[in-house]
Amino acid sequence: MENTQNYHMSPNEFRKQGKLMIDWIADYYENIEKYPVLSQVKPGEIKNQLPDAPPAESESMEQIMADVNSIILPGITHWQSPNFFAYFPSNSSGPSVLGDLLSSGLGVQGMLWATSPACTELETQVLDWLAEMLQLPEKFRSTSVGGAVIQDTASSAALSAVLAARERKTNYQTNDSGNLGNLVAYISSHTHSSVEKAIKIAGIGKNNLRLVEVDENLAMRPDLLETAIKNDVQNGLIPFFVCATVGTTSTNAMDPLPEIGKICQKYELWMHIDAAMSGTAAICPEYRYLLNGVELADSFSFNPHKWMFTNFDCNCFFVADRSVLIKTLSILPEYLKNQATESGAVFDYRDWHIQLGRRFRSLKLWFVIRHYGVNGLRYHIQQHINMAQQFAEWVRTSADFELIAPAPLNLVCFAHKKGDDFNKKLLEAINNQGKMYFTHTVINGRYVLRMCIGQTNTESSHVIQAWEIIQETAKELISKE
Amino acid sequence: MENTQNYHMSPNEFRKQGKLMIDWIADYYENIEKYPVLSQVKPGEIKNQLPDAPPAESESMEQIMADVNSIILPGITHWQSPNFFAYFPSNSSGPSVLGDLLSSGLGVQGMLWATSPACTELETQVLDWLAEMLQLPEKFRSTSVGGAVIQDTASSAALSAVLAARERKTNYQTNDSGNLGNLVAYISSHTHSSVEKAIKIAGIGKNNLRLVEVDENLAMRPDLLETAIKNDVQNGLIPFFVCATVGTTSTNAMDPLPEIGKICQKYELWMHIDAAMSGTAAICPEYRYLLNGVELADSFSFNPHKWMFTNFDCNCFFVADRSVLIKTLSILPEYLKNQATESGAVFDYRDWHIQLGRRFRSLKLWFVIRHYGVNGLRYHIQQHINMAQQFAEWVRTSADFELIAPAPLNLVCFAHKKGDDFNKKLLEAINNQGKMYFTHTVINGRYVLRMCIGQTNTESSHVIQAWEIIQETAKELISKE
Repeated sequence: MENTQNYHMSPNEFRKQGKLMIDWIADYYENIEKYPVLSQVKPGEIKNQLPDAPPAESESMEQIMADVNSIILPGITHWQSPNFFAYFPSNSSGPSVLGDLLSSGLGVQGMLWATSPACTELETQVLDWLAEMLQLPEKFRSTSVGGAVIQDTASSAALSAVLAARERKTNYQTNDSGNLGNLVAYISSHTHSSVEKAIKIAGIGKNNLRLVEVDENLAMRPDLLETAIKNDVQNGLIPFFVCATVGTTSTNAMDPLPEIGKICQKYELWMHIDAAMSGTAAICPEYRYLLNGVELADSFSFNPHKWMFTNFDCNCFFVADRSVLIKTLSILPEYLKNQATESGAVFDYRDWHIQLGRRFRSLKLWFVIRHYGVNGLRYHIQQHINMAQQFAEWVRTSADFELIAPAPLNLVCFAHKKGDDFNKKLLEAINNQGKMYFTHTVINGRYVLRMCIGQTNTESSHVIQAWEIIQETAKELISKE
Repeated sequence: MENTQNYHMSPNEFRKQGKLMIDWIADYYENIEKYPVLSQVKPGEIKNQLPDAPPAESESMEQIMADVNSIILPGITHWQSPNFFAYFPSNSSGPSVLGDLLSSGLGVQGMLWATSPACTELETQVLDWLAEMLQLPEKFRSTSVGGAVIQDTASSAALSAVLAARERKTNYQTNDSGNLGNLVAYISSHTHSSVEKAIKIAGIGKNNLRLVEVDENLAMRPDLLETAIKNDVQNGLIPFFVCATVGTTSTNAMDPLPEIGKICQKYELWMHIDAAMSGTAAICPEYRYLLNGVELADSFSFNPHKWMFTNFDCNCFFVADRSVLIKTLSILPEYLKNQATESGAVFDYRDWHIQLGRRFRSLKLWFVIRHYGVNGLRYHIQQHINMAQQFAEWVRTSADFELIAPAPLNLVCFAHKKGDDFNKKLLEAINNQGKMYFTHTVINGRYVLRMCIGQTNTESSHVIQAWEIIQETAKELISKE
């Protein structure tokens, strides 16, 4: 029983090592533009440098950090570089890292209200703040019949929406009897792949997922949605779910929410809105119109971990009627029973998502909103959009490049006029240089370059440099032909 | 386009505030025993102190931290207190917090190998280390046909196992056609509620989940499992999945893995092993026997975030055949295609779980294993078990209390002999004092106290004090009767 030995890190050692780590991170941010944005290592190169077996005895933080510098860093693709224009951003920021550090330090597991009331109540309040910032209708707020929860990703939020929709439509019988068949869901051909994944997971099946065609702006065509629903009803199937997107991943297309919403109400379908990246823009009054129609939705989700300077993971999932979600996902074994839960006066967020355990994620969101203030957040979002619009204008007036899709916000889809093979070569050549990193998509069979301008620290100088690199590299490739 | 203003936290301000936060956390750990372990606030008490609307303008970190101290801290249930004996632990430690801080700072999103090769390869290597530490069979290692992935929680791991089992049994047709019906799963009446939740989510339905009865040690009875399977087969149903538990949540019961495994092989069922807390004990050679039979399993999961000093969230999910899992969960839209993925030479971990996006969670696990060394981890696990065995001995030899279930490791289920009502009162009285926090379960209709000894900083003095508090409070309650 005697504790003669102790391998734990003492508070004093934690103070010392913690401050060194803070300096390491600050140094990293100050030097981040020196690294190639896209890691240039080959498959296996990192793993092969790591010992085959774990150490039997304790190693020092100095040894560990030496390996971070020599082995790990070369294998990092620098998402926090201002020259990162790939995919959608996954932004960090000072206040967010500190809020997340506090969460790790407190080490709270907030599965129930009782297991840390502050974890639940701060989350509820901050999500009500976001509802206010986004001017979401009253029904999405905790003070009404709805409410919101922090989930890890938009994938999990979409799955939760599919499940709640499935249960509401089948009168909560699928949870008991298994999938009853005949349920049909609708997305556009540009909806994020996570919804197809959710449909598979939920036992609905990919064959019962309709891909509605898009218009010339790559937005879902509501007329074709209604036609598909009518067809399915005539064939004895049961339409139950639509996912509309505010800002698709390929091109930032905007599905027409009001028209889709009316169809959902007419045929009694659950309407989920996936606004993973672009939802953040709606905190700016001039972009709030993007959410017109959200009042018709049953659920809505967006990711502060993309474009709102809150580090991964942080998805905010709003529901219009929380009782449906809770009835779908609630299970209460004896060992989790407690007075607060039984009183019905509290939220137990474990009933709002797939997982049981949960981290204190609202701290980082609270830190970000308070550090920036709503006006500060708006300012940076507007800056990003301005830069992207400037970039789009350069492309539009260029002799060699052309826009391939509308650029409503901060994502620009474009291509060199020399065709697919040239654009593939161009993308690879630029990303291998390491000065910037961007990615591609395919639109109507055409290979297209994607430039997403939304990294926390991106300033106009980075965008100017990127456009220069793109033009110069294209010229070089042509001169070598 | 001009950036005339900037709301971001500068690297210098981050250095300053970061070091203050490190000191705050170190101070918190040094003073943690001064706070009531179980938060004493009432529902709404935290939320009511927070402003109804978000701040329009930037607030200082000093203001934010003042609110952390005055509003948030009273609403914390202190999971990192050495006097926390509730549920299962959710442990943090110095090296883990630092590894997690590095992860937040790097801000990497590791959905694909290409989006940060180090994020994927360090994870693969550290999980191979764990396979070595747990002496898992070769098939669970990346160098063979299986492998492992870090998931958030055992709930998500169980869901992934159910889905892979569903697809393997239906020849990957359920993903396409929806639930084909007739699938049946088996757990014991003491299996964690997350498996029932997974069965519902996957569209199998609760009615197709059999709760196999347990023996006198509350472990699944393999004879009754086989009887249930035979019955279902005779009725035209298709048994497909069993979850066996190493250390149930209620009482730490151990399902007989070898017997269950043989039945799974005979009837071609997927065997998943949930060792969420107790799996960690198997890194000690003298407790490795707990995993005997794991060689018959298709998947195995345990949570370093419970008992291995790695802060939440960190579940390790091992599969014997990774191709089944990947085929079940893979979706590849154009915008995620890249050369490394197409070469087949890399793991893309997004295909190993529900979510698309993922955090660099292996850093904290790597930091913990290296800081403690395998021997350091074993030492502290052994200490916890020794303390729990001592506690069990005190109960066993007590005139007033009795053990209600075997205590094979670090969880002791016991009760005062005065019956359910008295034990309820006793638990509430002790938890309201704030000096320690423990919880309850119900076994065979009887209200039982659960004392889980596994918090990072718990030493024998805390366990001695807990036993004194329990005895003293019982005496006081009796004297007032």
